[in-house]
Amino acid sequence: MRLRNKPWAQKLVLEHPEALLNEPDPEIKIPWQERFADFSKPLAIEIGSGKGQFIINWAKQHPEMNFIGVELQTTAAGMILRKKLADQIDNLQIMCADAANIALYLPPKSADIIFLNFSDPWPKTRHEKRRLTYKSFLDKYKQVLKDNGHIEFKTDNQGLFEYSLQSMNNYGMLFDFVSLDLHQCNSEIYKQNIETEYEHKFAERGNRIYCVHAHF
Amino acid sequence: MRLRNKPWAQKLVLEHPEALLNEPDPEIKIPWQERFADFSKPLAIEIGSGKGQFIINWAKQHPEMNFIGVELQTTAAGMILRKKLADQIDNLQIMCADAANIALYLPPKSADIIFLNFSDPWPKTRHEKRRLTYKSFLDKYKQVLKDNGHIEFKTDNQGLFEYSLQSMNNYGMLFDFVSLDLHQCNSEIYKQNIETEYEHKFAERGNRIYCVHAHF
Repeated sequence: MRLRNKPWAQKLVLEHPEALLNEPDPEIKIPWQERFADFSKPLAIEIGSGKGQFIINWAKQHPEMNFIGVELQTTAAGMILRKKLADQIDNLQIMCADAANIALYLPPKSADIIFLNFSDPWPKTRHEKRRLTYKSFLDKYKQVLKDNGHIEFKTDNQGLFEYSLQSMNNYGMLFDFVSLDLHQCNSEIYKQNIETEYEHKFAERGNRIYCVHAHF
Repeated sequence: MRLRNKPWAQKLVLEHPEALLNEPDPEIKIPWQERFADFSKPLAIEIGSGKGQFIINWAKQHPEMNFIGVELQTTAAGMILRKKLADQIDNLQIMCADAANIALYLPPKSADIIFLNFSDPWPKTRHEKRRLTYKSFLDKYKQVLKDNGHIEFKTDNQGLFEYSLQSMNNYGMLFDFVSLDLHQCNSEIYKQNIETEYEHKFAERGNRIYCVHAHF
């Protein structure tokens, strides 16, 4: 969802280069060791963090991990940044950047989890390549994930979920967990679920939340 | 679903060995060439044919193919047999037999399609091995299917579908088609869909029909 432009967000983003990487040059290696107190901790990356409720809550609940929230829209990235600064969440870094560059921004085999939450469904066939579970994106996640790392994908969009199951399967990924109605399932995975803003809204309307966890 | 025992069905089954193989000995090779006018035609097998609406209609619509309906219950098998005899469906053979023996009954690499329709979900974890998409069954389907053959699986049971997606994926099968609501999708696959008795009833109630096509 495109947010209305907020001038304060644009300003905040430019004022905090220590917390938010704003459209970094993919050719220049990012000194992640300097940006986290201890970069050897397990690392989780969210692609498309929106307003940040999910990644903020994960980072608060898991101080033993590091988090990177990637978000293309400056206004949304500024909203995450404001929460991070207000709550002093030191184990979270934000990138205002294009997910297509993720394998240039992160070292190979550096991440334990990649979260894809309520990604844009791009329903038209001619936009297939833009879907975050298209094979060219999976190529990049594979490079970034550790050998025992995995992807956690949630959406309320049936078409995107059908597509993603097939795309991940055809790529050779192995499913660790599949739910066609996450909020009605008894699994431990739902008990530990952290909602995104979208997820909360959609689930309240009675919509199903689809979820798959998979590894390469 | 277990049907009430019908004595006429038991009698009919015993009277038509040319059309129905009743609990054949898995050790004895079945002379399929003698049971079909032309066994070189493409072959489709349905595991768990119930009352037979699906396989009867497929066989009528596709005289260029051969069909085998496998059904464990004598009463159900007798109901399929009665329809086959009434409508003179020569390209359909029926087996009243356990699907666990399928790889003993059929020659290796002989089938083009295996249909699994509304199989018993066996929801308890301790009954996992009885589900028709458990890996030991997939082993057998793999033996029976031609290299370019595939499985078509439909169910209205969410838990069985989640399980089956994961089981087929973890086995290494590749998905050709996934629908989480077959009767609401625009695909050619739905346009050519043939309903089972169950499917018609469940879909009329507004339940979703889940569907996956996959190959080894």
